[in-house]
Amino acid sequence: MEKKSFVLKGNIVYSGENKELCSIEGGYVVCENGICRGAFEKLPKQYETLPLTDYGDKIILPGMTDLHVHAPQYTFRALGMDLELLDWLNVHTFPEEAKYVDISYAKRAYGSFVSDLKHSLTTRACIFATLHREATVALMDLLEESGIVSYVGKVNMDRNGGENLCEADASAAAEDTKKWIEETAGKYERTNPILTPRFIPSCTDELMRELAKLQKTTGLRVQSHLSENPSEVAWVKELVPAAKNYADAYAVFDMFGDKDHPAVMAHCIYSEDEMDLLKEHGVYVAHCPESNLNLSSGIAPVRKFLEEGIAVGLGSDVAGGSSLSMAKALTLAVQVSKMYWRLIDEKSKPLTFAEAFYLATAGGGSYFGKVGTFLDGYEFDAVVAEDHIAKDVREYTPIQRTERMMYDESTMTICAKYAAGCACEL
Amino acid sequence: MEKKSFVLKGNIVYSGENKELCSIEGGYVVCENGICRGAFEKLPKQYETLPLTDYGDKIILPGMTDLHVHAPQYTFRALGMDLELLDWLNVHTFPEEAKYVDISYAKRAYGSFVSDLKHSLTTRACIFATLHREATVALMDLLEESGIVSYVGKVNMDRNGGENLCEADASAAAEDTKKWIEETAGKYERTNPILTPRFIPSCTDELMRELAKLQKTTGLRVQSHLSENPSEVAWVKELVPAAKNYADAYAVFDMFGDKDHPAVMAHCIYSEDEMDLLKEHGVYVAHCPESNLNLSSGIAPVRKFLEEGIAVGLGSDVAGGSSLSMAKALTLAVQVSKMYWRLIDEKSKPLTFAEAFYLATAGGGSYFGKVGTFLDGYEFDAVVAEDHIAKDVREYTPIQRTERMMYDESTMTICAKYAAGCACEL
Repeated sequence: MEKKSFVLKGNIVYSGENKELCSIEGGYVVCENGICRGAFEKLPKQYETLPLTDYGDKIILPGMTDLHVHAPQYTFRALGMDLELLDWLNVHTFPEEAKYVDISYAKRAYGSFVSDLKHSLTTRACIFATLHREATVALMDLLEESGIVSYVGKVNMDRNGGENLCEADASAAAEDTKKWIEETAGKYERTNPILTPRFIPSCTDELMRELAKLQKTTGLRVQSHLSENPSEVAWVKELVPAAKNYADAYAVFDMFGDKDHPAVMAHCIYSEDEMDLLKEHGVYVAHCPESNLNLSSGIAPVRKFLEEGIAVGLGSDVAGGSSLSMAKALTLAVQVSKMYWRLIDEKSKPLTFAEAFYLATAGGGSYFGKVGTFLDGYEFDAVVAEDHIAKDVREYTPIQRTERMMYDESTMTICAKYAAGCACEL
Repeated sequence: MEKKSFVLKGNIVYSGENKELCSIEGGYVVCENGICRGAFEKLPKQYETLPLTDYGDKIILPGMTDLHVHAPQYTFRALGMDLELLDWLNVHTFPEEAKYVDISYAKRAYGSFVSDLKHSLTTRACIFATLHREATVALMDLLEESGIVSYVGKVNMDRNGGENLCEADASAAAEDTKKWIEETAGKYERTNPILTPRFIPSCTDELMRELAKLQKTTGLRVQSHLSENPSEVAWVKELVPAAKNYADAYAVFDMFGDKDHPAVMAHCIYSEDEMDLLKEHGVYVAHCPESNLNLSSGIAPVRKFLEEGIAVGLGSDVAGGSSLSMAKALTLAVQVSKMYWRLIDEKSKPLTFAEAFYLATAGGGSYFGKVGTFLDGYEFDAVVAEDHIAKDVREYTPIQRTERMMYDESTMTICAKYAAGCACEL
């Protein structure tokens, strides 16, 4: 897809320099060769010749980034929510993921995932596939075509996945992963491989060492899970006794990334004592509030991460989360932060709507570079949305209309989408 | 509307005798003169002559009961979610409710509320209006026409509502309320008045005494709020020093109902020490999990209520809650119960999906009599829903399809609705 130059007109809502919510009624956003040139009340003279699409009274938002989502789990999202993490993995997740050895099943299932992702608020995503190389490539092909920009990981796991979901051994796993990287190298414009050790309980020490070697030679980034559930945390302590905590269990294997190759770690609910390591390695926290409720995991100390300057974005974590909706992730991030304040630590102020909006857009977006708002110099990601709330009763500002669409998604229709300067076909 | 006899065919999901989820694929539910005669795999011979509607592969659920919702707040739902209860009331709620003195505004706003309620899962509701008599009657007229069965309260408040939202004094308030009751007596088939002191901070002792007298002469039920937020609880302690707790502040004025005239009290988050009173008076708890998150209130000890045999139903509590969706109330009830277990008391087992489904249907429904399931003898309330999840990838049972529609409402379309044996026009 060609990175074009164009102007969109409508009611524009985005996060400003200080993460505050900004809006312009009937304003203009300019995209020049894929790069945003800003949002304006009046269109600057030099852009007047660019093609303009007038979205009338609709709302134009920055695209959102889903920092953590499992594509193969989309088939059973919103099911089996009466179990905790480790049981849920064994009963629902692993048996489903094992099916992706069948490439025709994988293509059907991933087709439905990518089609729904395309129609969501998401323009960027960090995605787990399964351990199956062929199915992972099929997923990447579909994503590339969709226009969404993504990191995609062929999952690595050589223990505790059950007999149908386990790589033969560490070196076979590394070999297969290397093959996958080579096979997809240079193939895509917007779809990037990322090393994906599932989580410590799924990866032997040998596998972690192999992946660290691969990381060195390829320079790829890493995504995984961290400190999600008390029983998982306890298990990791047993599995990697040399590590001083769960985060360190990645760091000791040199798989925790660095500022130039930041890792994304999902959850980090029990990471208060790991904040130094998160900070030192420039780790991104993918905060997944719905999943953390559904799997009875807990509430992540997001306010503390922000105060420490740790990077935070939001994740749907399908199928711990029930849908791909970043609106749900955004509003639940606010809601659970209120419970964190009320029930855990009254010094941790709840997130405001503006802060959660920032996390869903520019916060997570920054994992992809300058992404997630309409300031000058950002890559151009936008979603055009129409709301369906009787406006004959009361007037609402664009920011209020945005808050309402996020809290009550049934009132929102997504009409158009642009990722990295390209229009996505909906 | 005439209470008819008919049969519906489809995939039937409902709570059984022991509150477990039951389902029949391609089954039949029978309505005879407005009363359910049961759900059947094979249609019993004696009903073969009744008119049958075949809903094919759709799901047929019992109608749901919204035990606590503020109709006038529908206009600003999903807005202003960065405030706690008492500030939120002063900034958003009271100024909006004051507008309902204007009957034409009230009719427009209530029109939109009732229209959306009609298209929801709700077949029964306990509704707060405002203190305005004329607007409350307008709301009741609209509800009656919609087919939904409801209790509706003209709100009473003679202090702390601000200058435009306050009844002149206790006796004027009682007089106006009496007039409202007389004016609507015998007017409706499915719309019932209920006494509605807003909450203790809004009602002087004199007003409570006047309403208690009115309760005695009319035999009406009572709805109000109880123990929602720590600062509210502290305030009530100051306002009614004679009461041993918030619940007792209603009981000392004889406004806490009895088993034949049960009161509905919304929230009850801080009611652990009030459980004896709740039980003794047969009070219904309207558990409103989304509102309790949005207003940073806390998490109600629902498991404890259930263990004590206290009646519990679910409420949307618009506009503390952002939408009329009982699916949201149901799934959030499960989600917050997991946080209650994780963060407050690990002896309080999380609610299962089946338990929350029961609360949303038969639990709250029992406030209206035998309502909320498809067992023999229950009033016939049903909702027919279609799900939109790619079924070409995997097969799902009717119970799984129901869980998925509740967790991810965007996959659900409501196609038909029956309340108390009558079809509602959608």
